[in-house]
Parts: sequence; structure tokens; C-alpha cells
Amino acid sequence: MTDTRVPEAKLRSVVTELFAKMGVSPQDSAIAADVLLSADLRGVESHGVSNMLRKYVRDYRAGILNPAPKWNIIRESVATATIDADKGLGIIIGPKAMEIAIEKAKQAGIGMVTIKNSGHMGMVGYYAMQALAHDMIGMAMTSGRPSVLPTFGAEPRLGTNPIALAAPALTKAPFVFDAATSVISGNKVGLAQRLGAKLGPGLVADKNGSPLMREVDIKEVDPANPLLLPLGGTRELGSHKGYGLSAIVEILTGILAGAGSSLGRNDFSHTVVAYRIDAFMDIEAFKKEMDEWLGLLESTAPAPGQERVIYAGLMEAEVEADRRANGIPLHKEVVEWFSSICQELSIEPLL
Amino acid sequence: MTDTRVPEAKLRSVVTELFAKMGVSPQDSAIAADVLLSADLRGVESHGVSNMLRKYVRDYRAGILNPAPKWNIIRESVATATIDADKGLGIIIGPKAMEIAIEKAKQAGIGMVTIKNSGHMGMVGYYAMQALAHDMIGMAMTSGRPSVLPTFGAEPRLGTNPIALAAPALTKAPFVFDAATSVISGNKVGLAQRLGAKLGPGLVADKNGSPLMREVDIKEVDPANPLLLPLGGTRELGSHKGYGLSAIVEILTGILAGAGSSLGRNDFSHTVVAYRIDAFMDIEAFKKEMDEWLGLLESTAPAPGQERVIYAGLMEAEVEADRRANGIPLHKEVVEWFSSICQELSIEPLL
Repeated sequence: MTDTRVPEAKLRSVVTELFAKMGVSPQDSAIAADVLLSADLRGVESHGVSNMLRKYVRDYRAGILNPAPKWNIIRESVATATIDADKGLGIIIGPKAMEIAIEKAKQAGIGMVTIKNSGHMGMVGYYAMQALAHDMIGMAMTSGRPSVLPTFGAEPRLGTNPIALAAPALTKAPFVFDAATSVISGNKVGLAQRLGAKLGPGLVADKNGSPLMREVDIKEVDPANPLLLPLGGTRELGSHKGYGLSAIVEILTGILAGAGSSLGRNDFSHTVVAYRIDAFMDIEAFKKEMDEWLGLLESTAPAPGQERVIYAGLMEAEVEADRRANGIPLHKEVVEWFSSICQELSIEPLL
Repeated sequence: MTDTRVPEAKLRSVVTELFAKMGVSPQDSAIAADVLLSADLRGVESHGVSNMLRKYVRDYRAGILNPAPKWNIIRESVATATIDADKGLGIIIGPKAMEIAIEKAKQAGIGMVTIKNSGHMGMVGYYAMQALAHDMIGMAMTSGRPSVLPTFGAEPRLGTNPIALAAPALTKAPFVFDAATSVISGNKVGLAQRLGAKLGPGLVADKNGSPLMREVDIKEVDPANPLLLPLGGTRELGSHKGYGLSAIVEILTGILAGAGSSLGRNDFSHTVVAYRIDAFMDIEAFKKEMDEWLGLLESTAPAPGQERVIYAGLMEAEVEADRRANGIPLHKEVVEWFSSICQELSIEPLL
């Protein structure tokens, strides 16, 4: 079965209108649509309209998300700020927080903003990439509801706690890393559930907390409580490192924002950082070195049976070029959801 | 065979004198000894006197390391600095760079210092931990000679590129994460070689770049070119994440310091960061939350067959308490090396 390709502009227009129907201002609706569309354009379906939009709509309707938050900076220094998001969605406060970080980096060399009392952050790579146009390196991380087991543990204690970093190059696609600190992200489990796909070995634990080192039918996984393994999978393969990296995200987001850890909360905490490159060295020399180094990574001889070596962000840039030209592919089930919600809210249909 | 326990004070005195014999100033020799001893006290033998000291001695004697470097700040902003270390050893410039970062964080909320043209950094957790006494969070990373394969690659392109982060608690042992972004660190391979130990599956690749998913005799590994796997091991288990995290370290250390990537260089680049907690929130509330959260991690029900759940830094604090009281255990072969070098350099013997 082939997915339906929908032009970017049309999808953007419908998604923007959908947020507006939730009571979100036109400006904020456009921001939210841009973050979601960016995920779909880059091939990160797990964090785009297919998987996340309906959850956001559900949470606005349930009053969990505030469509018109009075967010404010509750503490500030030369290079830092802490924001209370007033239950606003992360994909709307995130871009604004990164703009504050970028302004601070212009002054101080670095800007870092922590955000508490917020909704979901979507694809964290978006905020890291905001830095690129300013000749800065961007970083972003987010923490939320625990679904990941600590090494040796049988109860989830950490969120999938992703980390993103974007750094500009001169002519090559920028380096853009964006990944959960668990072996697999929670949204990818959701995607597998919709597609009925199997999970490979070493991604999740059984209900007692023992890592499952065999292929797992998605029906064996409790969607409300998936028991994901930290990056590394088992202690022997370094799961204590994935566990520790996840804990770092927890400390630098929720705990440092004054919200406490994610345990026992239903909201999300985020952190964005901007590093001004010319605070450290010449910008052109940095970009030129990035071009050379990324080219060296690509030129690495592949291992037997492998086609090529890539770097983080390269494949996503290739996918984006295709999707900007040829539209964003949507699964039949997603098209049906759009059809139904557009009718319900009196929005011009997607197709 | 039992290791010999050597009192901390005696080992510190001999190591300090040894650096002085290399032409290092008394103050710098004491700094170097403190970083090395800290690794041994915390049970990180791979980065302590056993494994690293003889390499440092060798490199001073070969003229690769400069015992009296004229290091200087080559660029600076409110929150940042870039240091040229003039071929000084990383364990001596590192503590000084972190002091600069801490001073900047007092002013700006964050301080970040990149260092190029340096020797080895030792245990990076040391610099992160310097922040603790100042009620700050500390971060440190270092990059060096490539020994890690990118995902799908057959040639090493990245160093083991470790990341460390330390955050204070109120009464509990501080959170101290310190780990290579490869499955196993290069120094642990060196340690296995001295002990004749086997390596578990998923840690290294064969000479063609294919991940070895069986137990590996250490003799199969070329010590000059170990072909380590990035954290995750294989693509299916998330090695692209370990690869990407390692690349982040490369970007934020050598490339951002203006030294270029580690490819084709024999020196090391480092970065240290200090985050002032009260720039974001109240210090006491932060530490109290850390105590509660670390306690919750420890109280996690263990998976079948596991004894307990710990957090990064807890085991090291327990080991340190024992070793401060009962001495630092040294392998027979290490004791013999000390005996020989002390005689050669006319230093009072260790035992």
C-alpha cells in the first residue's frame, strides 16, 4: 500500500488552522506547524503530524495544554534564563526559548534556557537547528514521563530524554544529531504499534525488567508502560552509559529548571543552548573544517555488506530535499484522521 | 595474587616527585598527581597511575609533552575562552581551564573553555567535579587519536571521546557521570592487555570493520589500532547514537577550539563547562531535589538476578572511602615499574 504524498504548503495550512481551532493564536499556530512539518520533511515521522498532532489536539481538548499561556522568565543571568511555560506546548515555547538563548549568546558567547511546566517538545533537533542561521552551534534536550529502565532496574525511572546538537558547515549539509538516550524512542514504539511492526532484540525489557534479547512482537509491549532499555541495552554493552546520559538530561532540564525530576509529573521540561562560534574561533575556519571533516566521515571505507558511511543529519537533508519537491507521504490511517478532524472542526480538507 | 595496597599520601608524594623530575614545576606536579590519584582513589584504574603515568613519562622524555608550557588564552568572551596549551599535559592545563570556566560562570551563569594543542586529559570526571565545591554543575569532554569506527565504517574516525558531568547533592554522593562514547574505552583495552583478560561480545570489530559479536581474546586485538565500536555496538542496537555523541565531542572540543578534527593529529583537545546553579534556581532546592531523586533511583526494584540499582558516581564514592582509609591497590607489575623508575630517577622508593 502506497502512502499519499501531500504538498508541504497544503499540510502546513491545515495544521496551522487546526492549532488555531484549539484556541492558539495565529502566530503560535504557525510556529507549531513549522516544528511539526520540519519533522515530517526530514523523515522523522515519529515526531511529525502522523504521530504527535492528534495527541496535542487531545490534550488541548482535555485542558491539559494551555492554548494561550502566560509564560515568563522566572530567573535570569547574563548567559542564562529559566522559563515557566504555563502549560504551553513545547513546540511553541521551544522556538521562543531558543531565540532568547541566541540573543544571550550574541552578548555572552553562550546562552542557555531551561523551561519547566510545559507540554511536549516534538523533534528537539528543530531548536538546535535554529542556531545554524546565526553561525552558532545549537543544543536541545527534553525530559518527560518515565518509560526507560535504569541499568539493573525493573521499574521505569527516566524518560527517553533525547539530546540534539546542530553545527553548521560551509557547503555540506549541517551536522544535526537528534536521538533519544534510550535504544529506541517512545514515539517509535507508537509508530511500530500503528504499523504492526516487530521490535528487534535489545530494545525493550519483559515485565520483570529483564532485557529481551530476541525479536519482540509489538503486541507483547504494553503501550502505556513500554519498559524501554537505555542506550547500550545491557550492562555488558554499556547500558550504564545510556542510563547516565539520560540522567544528565534529567538534571539539565527538569531539575535545573526547578520542576524536580520527571517522576510523578505529567508535564515536560526542556533545555536549549546556543554557542556562538566566533566567541571561540573564526566562523569561516570552523565551517571549512566541518566541510572537510564531514567529507572524511563520508569517505570512510564501508564494512563488509554496508553501502556507505553517513553522518548525523545527512540522510535527513536528502529526505527533506525530496519531500519539499514531491510532498510529504502520509499513511492511509493518518489521511483518514485528517479527513475526520477537518470535517469535525470545519477546516478545508487536506485532500 | 593480591594487589599491594599503597597509602594515598605516599603514592601522591612519589608521583609528584616523578613529575618534578620531568621538569614540571612543583605546583604543576602537585596538580598532575592530584588528577591521577583521584582516578586511582575512585577505582578508575584505567586512568590512574597504573596505566597512564608511564605514558606521560615516556612522552615527556620524548619531547612530545612540554613540561613548562607557555599556555595562553587566544580568544575570550564574557562566558567563553579558547586556550592554546602549548603542548602541556591535559591533566595540568585541565584544572586551570576549569577554574577559568568557574570564574566566568560566577559572572555570566555559564563558563565554557575549549583547549587545543594539549596532551592527554586523564579522567575527565575530575574537571567536572571541580564545579561541585562552587555549587555548580561541571561538564568536561576530550577528543584524541581515532580508534572508534563510525557506524557501517571499516576505518577508525573518532576517538573514544568521553563525556563527564558532575552535579552536587545535599547529603548523598554527588552524581558523577564519566564515560567514553565508545562501548569500551581505549585505556580499558590497555588494562585488559596487561591483565590478559578477554573482551565481551559487541565491543570491538574485526580487521574488516565487522562488529565481533562473540567473546574476543585480547591477543586478537591490535593494541596500536583496536577498532572500537561506538556505544550501541551495532546499528540495530543504536551505534549511530554512540557515533553521533562521539562526533558531538569532536565538534565541541578540537573543531571549536580551532585545532580541527582529531584525524591526523597526535595531540588532544578538551572542553570544560561550569553551570552556576543559582543562575537557574535556588541552590538548596536543587540539592534537596537531587537527594530525593538519587534516592528514588537507588530504591528502584532490581531486575531478576540483579542485586541493586545504583547511579553514576555512587560506586566510585564508595570505593574512594575505602581507598582513602586502606590505601590504593597496585598490581605487581605496576609496583615493579615504580621500583625501577624511582631507582632510575633517584626518587625515594614507593615501598
